[in-house]
Amino acid sequence: MAKLIDYADAAPEAKAVFEDIAAARGLAPQDVNNAWKAMARHPANMEAFWALAKQTMKPGALDALTKEMVYLAVSMANRCEYCTASHTAQAKKKGMSEAMLGELIAVVGLAAMGNALAGAYRQPVDAQFEDA
Amino acid sequence: MAKLIDYADAAPEAKAVFEDIAAARGLAPQDVNNAWKAMARHPANMEAFWALAKQTMKPGALDALTKEMVYLAVSMANRCEYCTASHTAQAKKKGMSEAMLGELIAVVGLAAMGNALAGAYRQPVDAQFEDA
Amino acid sequence: MAKLIDYADAAPEAKAVFEDIAAARGLAPQDVNNAWKAMARHPANMEAFWALAKQTMKPGALDALTKEMVYLAVSMANRCEYCTASHTAQAKKKGMSEAMLGELIAVVGLAAMGNALAGAYRQPVDAQFEDA
Amino acid sequence: MAKLIDYADAAPEAKAVFEDIAAARGLAPQDVNNAWKAMARHPANMEAFWALAKQTMKPGALDALTKEMVYLAVSMANRCEYCTASHTAQAKKKGMSEAMLGELIAVVGLAAMGNALAGAYRQPVDAQFEDA
Amino acid sequence: MAKLIDYADAAPEAKAVFEDIAAARGLAPQDVNNAWKAMARHPANMEAFWALAKQTMKPGALDALTKEMVYLAVSMANRCEYCTASHTAQAKKKGMSEAMLGELIAVVGLAAMGNALAGAYRQPVDAQFEDA
Amino acid sequence: MAKLIDYADAAPEAKAVFEDIAAARGLAPQDVNNAWKAMARHPANMEAFWALAKQTMKPGALDALTKEMVYLAVSMANRCEYCTASHTAQAKKKGMSEAMLGELIAVVGLAAMGNALAGAYRQPVDAQFEDA
Repeated sequence: MAKLIDYADAAPEAKAVFEDIAAARGLAPQDVNNAWKAMARHPANMEAFWALAKQTMKPGALDALTKEMVYLAVSMANRCEYCTASHTAQAKKKGMSEAMLGELIAVVGLAAMGNALAGAYRQPVDAQFEDA
Repeated sequence: MAKLIDYADAAPEAKAVFEDIAAARGLAPQDVNNAWKAMARHPANMEAFWALAKQTMKPGALDALTKEMVYLAVSMANRCEYCTASHTAQAKKKGMSEAMLGELIAVVGLAAMGNALAGAYRQPVDAQFEDA
Repeated sequence: MAKLIDYADAAPEAKAVFEDIAAARGLAPQDVNNAWKAMARHPANMEAFWALAKQTMKPGALDALTKEMVYLAVSMANRCEYCTASHTAQAKKKGMSEAMLGELIAVVGLAAMGNALAGAYRQPVDAQFEDA
Repeated sequence: MAKLIDYADAAPEAKAVFEDIAAARGLAPQDVNNAWKAMARHPANMEAFWALAKQTMKPGALDALTKEMVYLAVSMANRCEYCTASHTAQAKKKGMSEAMLGELIAVVGLAAMGNALAGAYRQPVDAQFEDA
Repeated sequence: MAKLIDYADAAPEAKAVFEDIAAARGLAPQDVNNAWKAMARHPANMEAFWALAKQTMKPGALDALTKEMVYLAVSMANRCEYCTASHTAQAKKKGMSEAMLGELIAVVGLAAMGNALAGAYRQPVDAQFEDA
Repeated sequence: MAKLIDYADAAPEAKAVFEDIAAARGLAPQDVNNAWKAMARHPANMEAFWALAKQTMKPGALDALTKEMVYLAVSMANRCEYCTASHTAQAKKKGMSEAMLGELIAVVGLAAMGNALAGAYRQPVDAQFEDA
């Protein structure tokens, strides 16, 4: 198993991130998930990723659930098992139903096939799409 | 440039797909985009992908725009230039604003980074996420 | 455009590889394709890849065409446009018909979808497959 | 572990797919492998993928074993552990010997290296390959 | 061609980033490269990526050239043509010789092959490596 | 678990590779890591990869540690868990400190994000980078 640093054993900079995540999610800091316990080995990485994630995932022109589903779809496409599991759970918390998950997976599968076909056929981008 | 088969030169099975796509999108069959002109080399592939796409992309538990944005995000993650260009255009037609595109790209970039960090740290899936 | 070194301008070690490729393919050394002109920047890389390719692609338990189609399928899956174009041409020379290409692409597309679904659903490997 | 739905607990649409797979493979429906038990969460996805797989993998211009080996090679390239394990087993059943597997892996490894070199050197596609 | 926003036409937040990049690199703001002109469509994305890049790429436990070569190797592995071209140029500026580039490419190619072989053989992580 | 062949049970050609690896690393042949025990199924693959690795990873214009870190970064980018674990351990043996690992991971994460953004924005390569 990879090295994980628990909240109690973390460096002060990492502790502060655990606490900020915990506050944002309504958890105790020791219950923050493994991705962060792993990043706690290198507090600078943990701080940078949390700051970027907090900023990027907050509702804006896209709502929080849509953003979560986009993150999940990319994680499936990138074959990241940890990210798929954790963001499925987070999307469920934010309102993704089992039926929505089923359709999201269907689109991810279709896109993987469509992307592979485009790679195989190598068609050039249509002029009408160039400036989209 | 890769081989493209125009509607006028296509086999009858491929012509039927051009016509069905054209009807669904309110276009003339000769204006269907290059992805289909490339697949027209092998009508069975064109038929199979169109049937799957029509079925998968129709609104259901997820609306048509959300599905289109999920397809687009996967295409970006899979580094498919053609698919990124064509599905950006299609998502715009279905209502994706420039601001929504900007936030979608930000989430795709964040997820790519998060997926890479998970690959680097190799943390195990938390028990709480296993059954999501 | 990337840097390409023509046969006439290549270092002696690279020239020898151009000649060996040319002999194996029944071409003049100056007509060897761009992949090798690019690698000629670093003759050690060109020598190492050619030696490995010559050894790996020769007929054995798998015939030359099957090996070429496996190489092509991987190149499509890895979204390598150059490799897809060049190995489609080479597989055609070794006997791949247009119908075989169509079916190969269909399998590549199916596998891309199947791989994405497996990533999405994260099912464990069945005991019966573990020792395959 | 991810959620798996056994045959006995599946929805009627999923049960029908289990039965069709079982008939095609000469198994009892409860012995169908985990990929399908996972997809049974969303019977529409299970139906769509099975229909596409049955159609695509049947012998045609390429025989069944060659198709299976192409699927396997793509799964290795896409780093899908489940798919690699299950399609190695299926290819063995269809006649792939241990020596053929060894050579298939060698070609997959060579292609991965060749694809990476092409990405690094970025050479343009030769005119002679454009229309392959 | 994708949409590019020149410095002169950029929003004020984007202009500020162009100026900061230009100052860091000793260029005029209008000569900043296309990656940034593309991101200028969405100034928030441009700001976030520049802030992260500036922080991450500054010399620390790894010197600036090693960091640049790691970025380049990842870009090659991810088959990002733009990133490969631009970071090859930047690494050259920071001291990467043509011979170093040749060896870097050789390692990227070897790793791609090694990664593919590991995917094919699916060996478990040795106990001695788990806690690295 | 995948099939592993121990040194004692290996074919003579594979035994010779175990011994050469062991000698190069100051280990007993039975303590060579699982990647090689897996490849021992197909001694020709084991011989070819070891010969290439020995040649490619030896110090040259790049020192051994830099090469090891490039290999590690590619393995993270390619999401190869085995390779990430084993090459983290090997890089540590060659002098990579925990702080260096943290910065390497930060660059890999940044590059993954930058590569994804480039895929999303599809900007053309600047003329100044074409010939790098």
